[in-house]
Amino acid sequence: MSQPTVVTVGADMFADSVAGQAVDVERVDWRPPMPGTEADLAAVATDPRRPDANRRAVEAMLGVTAHLVDVAPASEVLGLEKGQFLHAGPPIEWARTSGPLRGALMGGAALEGLVDDPEDAVALFESGSSVSLEPCHHRSAVGPMAGVVTPSMWMWVLEDRATGRRTYCSLNEGLGKVLRYGAYSSEVLTRLRWMGDVLGPLLQAAVRGTEEATDVTGILTQMLQMGDEAHNRNRAGTLMLLRDLSPAMVSSGSDAGFDSKDVADVLRFVGGNDHFFLNLAMPACKLALDAGRDVPGSTMVVAMARNGTDFGVQVSGTGDEWFTGPAQVAEGLFLGDYGPDDANADIGDSAITETAGIGGFAMATAPAIVRLVGGTVPDALATTRRMHEITLAENPRWSVPVLEFMGTPTGIDVSKVCRTAILPQINTGMAGKVAGVGQVGAGLVTPPAEIFPKALAALAARVPSA
Amino acid sequence: MSQPTVVTVGADMFADSVAGQAVDVERVDWRPPMPGTEADLAAVATDPRRPDANRRAVEAMLGVTAHLVDVAPASEVLGLEKGQFLHAGPPIEWARTSGPLRGALMGGAALEGLVDDPEDAVALFESGSSVSLEPCHHRSAVGPMAGVVTPSMWMWVLEDRATGRRTYCSLNEGLGKVLRYGAYSSEVLTRLRWMGDVLGPLLQAAVRGTEEATDVTGILTQMLQMGDEAHNRNRAGTLMLLRDLSPAMVSSGSDAGFDSKDVADVLRFVGGNDHFFLNLAMPACKLALDAGRDVPGSTMVVAMARNGTDFGVQVSGTGDEWFTGPAQVAEGLFLGDYGPDDANADIGDSAITETAGIGGFAMATAPAIVRLVGGTVPDALATTRRMHEITLAENPRWSVPVLEFMGTPTGIDVSKVCRTAILPQINTGMAGKVAGVGQVGAGLVTPPAEIFPKALAALAARVPSA
Repeated sequence: MSQPTVVTVGADMFADSVAGQAVDVERVDWRPPMPGTEADLAAVATDPRRPDANRRAVEAMLGVTAHLVDVAPASEVLGLEKGQFLHAGPPIEWARTSGPLRGALMGGAALEGLVDDPEDAVALFESGSSVSLEPCHHRSAVGPMAGVVTPSMWMWVLEDRATGRRTYCSLNEGLGKVLRYGAYSSEVLTRLRWMGDVLGPLLQAAVRGTEEATDVTGILTQMLQMGDEAHNRNRAGTLMLLRDLSPAMVSSGSDAGFDSKDVADVLRFVGGNDHFFLNLAMPACKLALDAGRDVPGSTMVVAMARNGTDFGVQVSGTGDEWFTGPAQVAEGLFLGDYGPDDANADIGDSAITETAGIGGFAMATAPAIVRLVGGTVPDALATTRRMHEITLAENPRWSVPVLEFMGTPTGIDVSKVCRTAILPQINTGMAGKVAGVGQVGAGLVTPPAEIFPKALAALAARVPSA
Repeated sequence: MSQPTVVTVGADMFADSVAGQAVDVERVDWRPPMPGTEADLAAVATDPRRPDANRRAVEAMLGVTAHLVDVAPASEVLGLEKGQFLHAGPPIEWARTSGPLRGALMGGAALEGLVDDPEDAVALFESGSSVSLEPCHHRSAVGPMAGVVTPSMWMWVLEDRATGRRTYCSLNEGLGKVLRYGAYSSEVLTRLRWMGDVLGPLLQAAVRGTEEATDVTGILTQMLQMGDEAHNRNRAGTLMLLRDLSPAMVSSGSDAGFDSKDVADVLRFVGGNDHFFLNLAMPACKLALDAGRDVPGSTMVVAMARNGTDFGVQVSGTGDEWFTGPAQVAEGLFLGDYGPDDANADIGDSAITETAGIGGFAMATAPAIVRLVGGTVPDALATTRRMHEITLAENPRWSVPVLEFMGTPTGIDVSKVCRTAILPQINTGMAGKVAGVGQVGAGLVTPPAEIFPKALAALAARVPSA
C-alpha cells in the first residue's frame, strides 16, 4: 500500500493533525501577496515579453566577468570636477541628508580644499552654490556606506572585456573612524591624503604592472568557498587581491620610484583591513547588473541602494527610474556602548552585492558572519534558501559548498517579491546617526516593503495592451 | 500527555517499527568492539589513573600556542649531518621502503652532492654505508608525504613560548613533480636549490624582521572559518602567512640584500602554492601533541604517521613506542589518467593534523574539500560528527561555524576507537607507487585497524595491579 503524501499550505493546524496520523507532510511556506498588488501581478504575469526578457536580463548578468584594469583619480576616470560630490543611494538634496552622509560630505569638502574646517562645509552645502550632489550609480560607480566620492579620490576601474563597459569604486579606508561612516576628524583626512599620495599611485603601478589582469569575478567565486559572503566578510577576497598584486607592487612599485617602506606600508594597510576587497566586490556586482539593465518587460532588480534617508531600487524593465521608500534601521550587534538609538537608517550602495546574489543572499556560505551581524547559523542557512523564492536563477559560478554546491540565488524578481511578500535580506554595517561618529555596529535589514509594489505598478503600466 | 521518546541501538527494525507509530526515535550508532579487545578494554577502563591522565594530556595539548620564530637549515637547527636522512612515519630500513620514499631519498642524496645522478643513490642506500635513515618524529620534526629532510634543507621553527619546546618542518615545494611525492628529476632539484638559496634565506630575514611572531595556532583558528581543514586545503592559511610576512619580506629582505626580483619571485612562489601553509600546520599540531606525551595512564594518541609501507601510532601512556600495521591505499580522485593501481600506500607525517583534530576530523568546515578528495558534502559533515565518538575533547579555539561553532573533535582515545571500531578519518594526497612519478591523486584513508588493539594491549599491560 502506498503511503499518502500530503502537501499543506498556510495554517499549521491541518499539517499537525495529518502528521499526528503518521502521514508524510510537506509544509510549503505560503503568504498572501503584498496588499493591493493583485491587479498589477496579474498584468505583469500575462506580459508576453516577460519570460524571455527575464531570461535575457539574467543571462546578460551572469555572462559578465569583471577584470581589474586600472586605478586612477575620479577626476580622470569619472570626469568629476571640483565641487561635484557623488554619494550612495538614490538622488537626495542636502536638506534631507542624514548625519553620516553629511559628515562624509563635510570631510570630502575639506579634502578637496573647498573649506579648511569640515564644519564650515555645512554653510557651503546649505547655500548650494558651487557644489552639487549626484548618485554614484549615475556615473557607473558605487560607494559603500555614505559613498562620497570627490575628484581627488582614487578609484578601482573594472571592465567587462566583452563589451568594454566599466564600473568604478573608491578605495576602502578600513573600519572605525572613516569617512564612509560619516567621520571627518583630522585622522580621517590624513589617511585619505596618504591614500591619494601613496596607496592609489602604488596600486596603479601594481595593476598596470600585473601581467594578467585580476579576475574579480573569479576571486568572488573562490571567496564564497572561503567563508566570505562578500558584503560584511571580505577577508579571503582581500588576501587573494594581495596575493595577486603584491609581486607587481614590489617590482613595478620599485620601478615607479616607491621605496621599500612605502611598499611595506601598503602591504600592511591592505593586509590589516579585511574589508578592503568590498570595494572591488561592489563594482563587480554593478558591472554584472548593468548588463541586465533596460530589457523591456524584465522584472529583474538591477540596483538596490540607500542614501541614509531613502532606500531605492531600479528595475531592468523601467530604465533609470528609482522607486524609493524610507530606509530602515538594521537589527544586529553594536560596537562598545552603542545601541539601537545611535544607529542611522540603512545607508550605502553595498546592497548591490545582494542584488547580484551574494552578501545576505549567500549567508549560508559564511556562517561565521552571524558573529558580526547577529542571528544563528541555522538562520543563515535558511536565509539563502529563502532568497531562492524571490530570485530568477542560481549563479553557477557562485556556489555554496555546504548547500551541496547550489548556486547563489540571483536576480531579484519584483513579481516574486510582491507575490510572496518575502523581502530581500541585506546584511550591512551601521553608521552612527550623528555626523562624525563613524561605525556603531552591523546587522540585518530589509528594504521598505512599499518600493516593490511601486516598481510593480510601473512595470504593469508598461505592459503592451493585447 | 507527554509523548514517549525511544532511544534505539543497533538493528533498524525496531526503530522503524516505533517510528511507524509516530513516536520520536533517537537512533544511536552502535557497533561491537574490535574483536579480542574486551579484556584489555576492561583493564584500561578500570585504570584509576586514566580519567585524570587523559584530562592532563588534553589540557597540555590544548594549552599550546605555536609561534613561528625562525627559518634555518636542518644542519643548524636539527644538527643533521651529511648522509643523515629524515623521513616520514615510523622507522624503516631501505629494503622495505616504497617507491615514493625511495625516490625522495634518491633526490635528497643528489641534492646533498652524495651522488651526481639520483639513480646512483640506490647502490648507496643498499650498501647502507655512510647513510642513515631516521624518522622526522625522532628529531621533533614532521614531513609531508615522503617527508625526506636533508642537512641543507631550510626548516620552519615553531616554538611554544610557555615551555620553550620547538618543532620543525621543511618548506613546501608545491604540487606535481616534487620531492615529497617521490619525484627527483632535474626540475625538482633545481627548485630545491632555489629554495635553499633564495626562499629559505628571504623567509628567514622576514621572520626575524617581523615585529610580532606569527601565531600559527591563531591562523589555524581563522583558516577553519575560511574553508580550510588544514591538511588538503591550506589556501586561506597560505594567504594569511603571506599577509603576515610580506611587509618584512620587502623591508628586511631589502636590508638583507635581496633585490626586488627575488622578493617578487618569492611572493609569486608562495602565493602560487595553496599548500604552502601545510608545512606550518603540521609542526603546530606536533607542538601541541608533544605537550601531551608521556602521561602515564593516558590513552590519547600523540602521533599518527606513515612511511609508505607502515602506518604507526604513538600513544601518550606508552612513550615512544610505535604500534604499526600495513599502510592502506586511499580511495579518492585521481589526476589525469592515473588510477587506483598507480597509487602507493598511504605516506607522510601529515596525519598529525588529524591527530590534533583538524584535517579529516574538520572536514565539516571545508565542504569544498570533497571536490578534491571525493565523497559528498553530507559525508563531510557526518565525518566530523563521527570523530567526536572517538575523541576526548572539543577544541574551543578550533570551531566549526556550520556546526554552530562546535569545537573540532580532538584527542583520539585508543579505548574509544577499540570500543566503537570507528577508525580515524584521514584525508590525504596520493603518491605514485613508482619512484619518480609524483602525485597521482588525493583521497580518504584510515589507519589499519589492528594498530589500535596493539596499542590498547600495551596500555593494559601497564595498568598497575590493584
